[in-house]
Amino acid sequence: MSEPVALQPVGTVRGGRIDVVDDHWGDVESVIELDAALFSPEATAGLDAFSHLLVVYFFHKVLPGKIETLARRPRNNPAWPRVGIFAQRGKNRPNRLGVSTCRILAVDGLSVHVQGLDAVDGTPVLDLKPHMSEFDPRGTVREPGWARELMRDYW
Amino acid sequence: MSEPVALQPVGTVRGGRIDVVDDHWGDVESVIELDAALFSPEATAGLDAFSHLLVVYFFHKVLPGKIETLARRPRNNPAWPRVGIFAQRGKNRPNRLGVSTCRILAVDGLSVHVQGLDAVDGTPVLDLKPHMSEFDPRGTVREPGWARELMRDYW
Repeated sequence: MSEPVALQPVGTVRGGRIDVVDDHWGDVESVIELDAALFSPEATAGLDAFSHLLVVYFFHKVLPGKIETLARRPRNNPAWPRVGIFAQRGKNRPNRLGVSTCRILAVDGLSVHVQGLDAVDGTPVLDLKPHMSEFDPRGTVREPGWARELMRDYW
Repeated sequence: MSEPVALQPVGTVRGGRIDVVDDHWGDVESVIELDAALFSPEATAGLDAFSHLLVVYFFHKVLPGKIETLARRPRNNPAWPRVGIFAQRGKNRPNRLGVSTCRILAVDGLSVHVQGLDAVDGTPVLDLKPHMSEFDPRGTVREPGWARELMRDYW
Protein backbone atom coordinates (compact mmCIF):
# COMPACT_ATOMS: atom_id res chain seq x y z
CA MET A 1 0.00 0.00 0.00
CA SER A 2 1.05 3.57 -0.64
CA GLU A 3 1.69 6.00 2.19
CA PRO A 4 -1.39 7.78 3.53
CA VAL A 5 -1.94 11.40 2.56
CA ALA A 6 -2.93 13.86 5.30
CA LEU A 7 -5.10 16.76 4.16
CA GLN A 8 -6.10 19.86 6.05
CA PRO A 9 -9.61 21.08 5.16
CA VAL A 10 -9.42 24.53 3.60
CA GLY A 11 -12.94 25.44 4.66
CA THR A 12 -16.44 24.33 5.56
CA VAL A 13 -19.86 24.34 3.91
CA ARG A 14 -22.28 26.53 5.88
CA GLY A 15 -26.02 26.65 5.37
CA GLY A 16 -27.95 24.77 2.76
CA ARG A 17 -29.21 21.36 3.77
CA ILE A 18 -28.81 19.76 7.17
CA ASP A 19 -29.87 16.27 6.15
CA VAL A 20 -28.26 13.98 3.63
CA VAL A 21 -30.85 13.33 0.92
CA ASP A 22 -30.48 11.93 -2.58
CA ASP A 23 -32.15 14.40 -4.91
CA HIS A 24 -33.18 17.98 -5.75
CA TRP A 25 -29.92 19.77 -4.95
CA GLY A 26 -30.19 22.30 -7.80
CA ASP A 27 -31.74 25.19 -5.89
CA VAL A 28 -29.83 24.70 -2.64
CA GLU A 29 -27.79 27.76 -1.70
CA SER A 30 -24.88 27.59 0.72
CA VAL A 31 -21.66 29.35 1.61
CA ILE A 32 -18.17 27.89 1.54
CA GLU A 33 -16.33 29.56 4.40
CA LEU A 34 -12.59 29.32 3.90
CA ASP A 35 -10.54 29.01 7.07
CA ALA A 36 -9.34 32.45 8.13
CA ALA A 37 -6.56 30.84 10.16
CA LEU A 38 -5.07 29.52 6.92
CA PHE A 39 -5.97 32.05 4.24
CA SER A 40 -6.34 35.73 3.52
CA PRO A 41 -9.02 37.10 1.15
CA GLU A 42 -6.31 37.23 -1.51
CA ALA A 43 -6.75 33.46 -1.94
CA THR A 44 -10.01 34.04 -3.84
CA ALA A 45 -8.90 37.08 -5.89
CA GLY A 46 -10.29 36.81 -9.41
CA LEU A 47 -12.59 33.88 -8.65
CA ASP A 48 -15.61 36.06 -9.45
CA ALA A 49 -14.55 36.09 -13.11
CA PHE A 50 -15.71 32.45 -13.27
CA SER A 51 -19.34 31.37 -13.28
CA HIS A 52 -18.75 27.91 -11.82
CA LEU A 53 -16.67 26.32 -9.09
CA LEU A 54 -15.39 22.77 -8.73
CA VAL A 55 -15.49 21.69 -5.09
CA VAL A 56 -13.64 18.73 -3.59
CA TYR A 57 -15.12 17.79 -0.25
CA PHE A 58 -15.20 15.08 2.40
CA PHE A 59 -18.36 13.03 3.04
CA HIS A 60 -17.84 13.36 6.78
CA LYS A 61 -21.19 11.83 7.69
CA VAL A 62 -20.30 8.46 6.16
CA LEU A 63 -19.09 6.16 8.93
CA PRO A 64 -15.94 4.20 8.01
CA GLY A 65 -17.78 0.92 8.53
CA LYS A 66 -20.25 1.88 5.79
CA ILE A 67 -17.62 2.27 3.07
CA GLU A 68 -18.15 -0.05 0.11
CA THR A 69 -15.02 -1.42 -1.57
CA LEU A 70 -16.62 -3.98 -3.88
CA ALA A 71 -19.81 -3.64 -5.93
CA ARG A 72 -23.43 -2.84 -5.20
CA ARG A 73 -26.56 -1.66 -6.93
CA PRO A 74 -26.65 2.17 -6.92
CA ARG A 75 -29.16 3.32 -4.30
CA ASN A 76 -29.87 -0.38 -3.78
CA ASN A 77 -32.31 -0.12 -6.66
CA PRO A 78 -33.05 -3.66 -7.92
CA ALA A 79 -33.75 -2.23 -11.39
CA TRP A 80 -30.13 -1.14 -11.79
CA PRO A 81 -27.08 -3.36 -12.26
CA ARG A 82 -24.58 -4.27 -9.58
CA VAL A 83 -21.55 -2.09 -10.38
CA GLY A 84 -18.21 -1.51 -8.70
CA ILE A 85 -17.75 1.38 -6.31
CA PHE A 86 -15.45 3.07 -8.84
CA ALA A 87 -18.20 2.81 -11.50
CA GLN A 88 -20.67 4.83 -9.46
CA ARG A 89 -20.70 8.11 -7.55
CA GLY A 90 -22.26 7.01 -4.27
CA LYS A 91 -20.88 8.63 -1.13
CA ASN A 92 -20.00 5.40 0.73
CA ARG A 93 -16.74 5.09 -1.16
CA PRO A 94 -13.06 4.68 -0.34
CA ASN A 95 -11.68 8.01 0.93
CA ARG A 96 -15.21 9.47 0.98
CA LEU A 97 -14.34 12.21 -1.53
CA GLY A 98 -17.04 14.22 -3.24
CA VAL A 99 -16.38 16.25 -6.40
CA SER A 100 -19.05 18.58 -7.69
CA THR A 101 -19.45 21.68 -9.84
CA CYS A 102 -21.76 24.44 -8.63
CA ARG A 103 -22.66 27.99 -9.60
CA ILE A 104 -20.83 30.90 -7.98
CA LEU A 105 -23.34 33.46 -6.72
CA ALA A 106 -20.88 35.82 -5.05
CA VAL A 107 -17.33 35.91 -3.74
CA ASP A 108 -16.90 37.95 -0.58
CA GLY A 109 -13.33 37.47 0.63
CA LEU A 110 -13.19 34.08 2.29
CA SER A 111 -16.93 33.47 1.85
CA VAL A 112 -17.90 31.91 -1.47
CA HIS A 113 -21.66 31.87 -2.00
CA VAL A 114 -22.79 29.03 -4.25
CA GLN A 115 -25.89 27.39 -5.66
CA GLY A 116 -26.32 23.69 -6.35
CA LEU A 117 -23.55 22.28 -4.17
CA ASP A 118 -24.59 18.77 -3.11
CA ALA A 119 -22.93 18.88 0.31
CA VAL A 120 -24.64 19.36 3.66
CA ASP A 121 -24.01 22.04 6.27
CA GLY A 122 -20.75 21.34 8.09
CA THR A 123 -19.05 19.44 5.26
CA PRO A 124 -15.24 19.84 5.26
CA VAL A 125 -14.00 21.31 1.97
CA LEU A 126 -10.62 20.10 0.68
CA ASP A 127 -10.15 22.21 -2.43
CA LEU A 128 -11.80 24.80 -4.67
CA LYS A 129 -10.92 25.12 -8.34
CA PRO A 130 -12.43 27.39 -10.97
CA HIS A 131 -14.37 25.54 -13.63
CA MET A 132 -12.49 25.71 -16.95
CA SER A 133 -14.31 24.25 -19.95
CA GLU A 134 -11.13 22.66 -21.23
CA PHE A 135 -11.34 20.17 -18.36
CA ASP A 136 -14.67 18.89 -19.69
CA PRO A 137 -14.44 15.45 -21.34
CA ARG A 138 -12.81 15.49 -24.77
CA GLY A 139 -14.50 13.40 -27.43
CA THR A 140 -17.81 11.59 -27.45
CA VAL A 141 -19.31 10.80 -24.06
CA ARG A 142 -20.93 7.41 -23.44
CA GLU A 143 -22.79 6.50 -20.25
CA PRO A 144 -25.06 3.61 -19.26
CA GLY A 145 -28.82 4.01 -18.99
CA TRP A 146 -28.97 3.43 -15.24
CA ALA A 147 -26.84 6.54 -14.68
CA ARG A 148 -29.26 8.64 -16.72
CA GLU A 149 -32.18 7.35 -14.65
CA LEU A 150 -30.40 7.84 -11.33
CA MET A 151 -29.50 11.45 -12.12
CA ARG A 152 -32.91 12.43 -13.45
CA ASP A 153 -34.05 14.24 -10.30
CA TYR A 154 -30.66 14.98 -8.80
CA TRP A 155 -30.60 18.73 -9.45
CA MET B 1 -8.96 24.75 12.00
CA SER B 2 -10.88 21.61 11.14
CA GLU B 3 -9.50 18.18 11.90
CA PRO B 4 -7.14 16.76 9.27
CA VAL B 5 -8.45 14.06 6.97
CA ALA B 6 -6.25 11.00 6.37
CA LEU B 7 -6.65 9.40 2.97
CA GLN B 8 -5.28 6.09 1.74
CA PRO B 9 -4.37 6.15 -1.97
CA VAL B 10 -6.53 3.67 -3.86
CA GLY B 11 -3.96 3.22 -6.61
CA THR B 12 -1.08 4.68 -8.61
CA VAL B 13 -0.58 6.09 -12.10
CA ARG B 14 1.82 3.90 -14.09
CA GLY B 15 3.43 4.84 -17.38
CA GLY B 16 2.79 8.01 -19.32
CA ARG B 17 5.06 10.92 -18.55
CA ILE B 18 7.96 10.89 -16.13
CA ASP B 19 8.50 14.64 -15.99
CA VAL B 20 6.08 17.32 -14.86
CA VAL B 21 5.44 19.57 -17.88
CA ASP B 22 2.71 22.11 -18.52
CA ASP B 23 1.17 21.24 -21.86
CA HIS B 24 0.25 18.62 -24.47
CA TRP B 25 -1.27 15.99 -22.23
CA GLY B 26 -4.00 14.93 -24.66
CA ASP B 27 -2.28 11.94 -26.26
CA VAL B 28 -0.56 10.65 -23.13
CA GLU B 29 -1.60 7.09 -22.29
CA SER B 30 -1.17 5.62 -18.83
CA VAL B 31 -2.61 2.96 -16.55
CA ILE B 32 -4.21 3.51 -13.18
CA GLU B 33 -3.26 0.47 -11.12
CA LEU B 34 -5.65 0.03 -8.22
CA ASP B 35 -4.12 -1.41 -5.08
CA ALA B 36 -4.68 -5.18 -5.01
CA ALA B 37 -4.18 -5.18 -1.24
CA LEU B 38 -7.33 -3.05 -0.90
CA PHE B 39 -9.58 -4.03 -3.80
CA SER B 40 -10.79 -6.93 -5.87
CA PRO B 41 -11.56 -6.58 -9.61
CA GLU B 42 -15.22 -6.25 -8.61
CA ALA B 43 -14.47 -2.63 -7.65
CA THR B 44 -14.38 -1.64 -11.34
CA ALA B 45 -17.32 -3.79 -12.54
CA GLY B 46 -19.36 -1.82 -15.07
CA LEU B 47 -16.85 0.99 -15.44
CA ASP B 48 -16.34 0.07 -19.09
CA ALA B 49 -19.89 1.26 -19.82
CA PHE B 50 -18.58 4.82 -19.36
CA SER B 51 -16.37 6.61 -21.89
CA HIS B 52 -14.72 8.97 -19.38
CA LEU B 53 -13.28 8.81 -15.90
CA LEU B 54 -12.88 11.54 -13.29
CA VAL B 55 -9.64 11.04 -11.37
CA VAL B 56 -8.74 12.65 -8.05
CA TYR B 57 -5.03 12.48 -7.42
CA PHE B 58 -2.22 13.86 -5.29
CA PHE B 59 0.47 16.14 -6.75
CA HIS B 60 3.13 14.24 -4.84
CA LYS B 61 6.05 16.00 -6.56
CA VAL B 62 5.08 19.39 -5.14
CA LEU B 63 7.18 20.03 -2.04
CA PRO B 64 5.17 21.44 0.90
CA GLY B 65 7.36 24.57 0.95
CA LYS B 66 6.25 25.35 -2.62
CA ILE B 67 2.54 25.52 -1.83
CA GLU B 68 0.94 28.88 -2.60
CA THR B 69 -1.81 30.06 -0.25
CA LEU B 70 -2.24 33.63 -1.51
CA ALA B 71 -2.27 34.86 -5.12
CA ARG B 72 0.11 34.68 -8.05
CA ARG B 73 0.15 35.03 -11.81
CA PRO B 74 -0.67 31.64 -13.38
CA ARG B 75 2.55 30.13 -14.75
CA ASN B 76 4.23 33.37 -13.62
CA ASN B 77 3.15 34.85 -16.93
CA PRO B 78 3.31 38.66 -16.65
CA ALA B 79 0.56 38.95 -19.30
CA TRP B 80 -1.97 37.31 -16.97
CA PRO B 81 -3.49 38.80 -13.82
CA ARG B 82 -2.48 37.96 -10.30
CA VAL B 83 -5.25 35.65 -9.05
CA GLY B 84 -5.84 33.73 -5.85
CA ILE B 85 -4.79 30.11 -5.62
CA PHE B 86 -8.49 29.09 -5.53
CA ALA B 87 -9.09 31.01 -8.78
CA GLN B 88 -6.53 28.97 -10.71
CA ARG B 89 -5.72 25.29 -11.22
CA GLY B 90 -1.96 25.29 -10.63
CA LYS B 91 -0.56 22.28 -8.80
CA ASN B 92 1.21 24.23 -6.02
CA ARG B 93 -2.02 24.53 -4.08
CA PRO B 94 -3.25 23.72 -0.57
CA ASN B 95 -3.72 19.94 -0.24
CA ARG B 96 -2.10 19.40 -3.66
CA LEU B 97 -5.22 17.78 -5.13
CA GLY B 98 -5.60 17.28 -8.86
CA VAL B 99 -8.98 16.60 -10.49
CA SER B 100 -9.11 15.65 -14.13
CA THR B 101 -11.33 13.85 -16.63
CA CYS B 102 -9.73 11.44 -19.08
CA ARG B 103 -10.84 8.90 -21.64
CA ILE B 104 -11.16 5.24 -20.63
CA LEU B 105 -9.35 3.04 -23.14
CA ALA B 106 -9.89 -0.30 -21.38
CA VAL B 107 -10.76 -1.70 -17.97
CA ASP B 108 -8.90 -4.87 -17.08
CA GLY B 109 -9.74 -5.72 -13.48
CA LEU B 110 -7.70 -3.41 -11.29
CA SER B 111 -5.90 -1.87 -14.27
CA VAL B 112 -7.71 1.06 -15.85
CA HIS B 113 -6.08 2.17 -19.11
CA VAL B 114 -6.65 5.85 -19.86
CA GLN B 115 -5.74 8.58 -22.31
CA GLY B 116 -5.24 12.25 -21.48
CA LEU B 117 -4.66 12.00 -17.74
CA ASP B 118 -2.45 14.93 -16.72
CA ALA B 119 -0.60 13.08 -13.94
CA VAL B 120 2.94 11.69 -14.10
CA ASP B 121 4.10 8.13 -13.53
CA GLY B 122 3.97 7.27 -9.82
CA THR B 123 1.19 9.71 -8.91
CA PRO B 124 -0.96 8.49 -5.98
CA VAL B 125 -4.64 8.22 -6.97
CA LEU B 126 -7.23 9.04 -4.32
CA ASP B 127 -10.50 8.31 -6.12
CA LEU B 128 -11.99 7.28 -9.45
CA LYS B 129 -15.51 8.28 -10.45
CA PRO B 130 -17.34 7.65 -13.71
CA HIS B 131 -18.02 10.82 -15.68
CA MET B 132 -21.76 11.55 -15.65
CA SER B 133 -22.89 14.46 -17.83
CA GLU B 134 -25.28 15.68 -15.17
CA PHE B 135 -22.28 16.78 -13.11
CA ASP B 136 -21.27 19.20 -15.87
CA PRO B 137 -21.95 22.85 -15.02
CA ARG B 138 -25.63 23.83 -15.20
CA GLY B 139 -26.40 27.13 -16.87
CA THR B 140 -24.21 29.49 -18.83
CA VAL B 141 -20.47 29.19 -18.28
CA ARG B 142 -18.34 32.31 -17.97
CA GLU B 143 -14.54 32.26 -17.73
CA PRO B 144 -11.85 34.95 -18.00
CA GLY B 145 -9.67 35.34 -21.07
CA TRP B 146 -6.42 34.38 -19.36
CA ALA B 147 -7.83 30.92 -18.63
CA ARG B 148 -8.66 30.41 -22.33
CA GLU B 149 -5.12 31.37 -23.28
CA LEU B 150 -3.50 29.22 -20.60
CA MET B 151 -5.44 26.12 -21.62
CA ARG B 152 -4.92 26.54 -25.37
CA ASP B 153 -2.15 23.95 -25.65
CA TYR B 154 -2.93 21.93 -22.55
CA TRP B 155 -4.31 18.84 -24.29
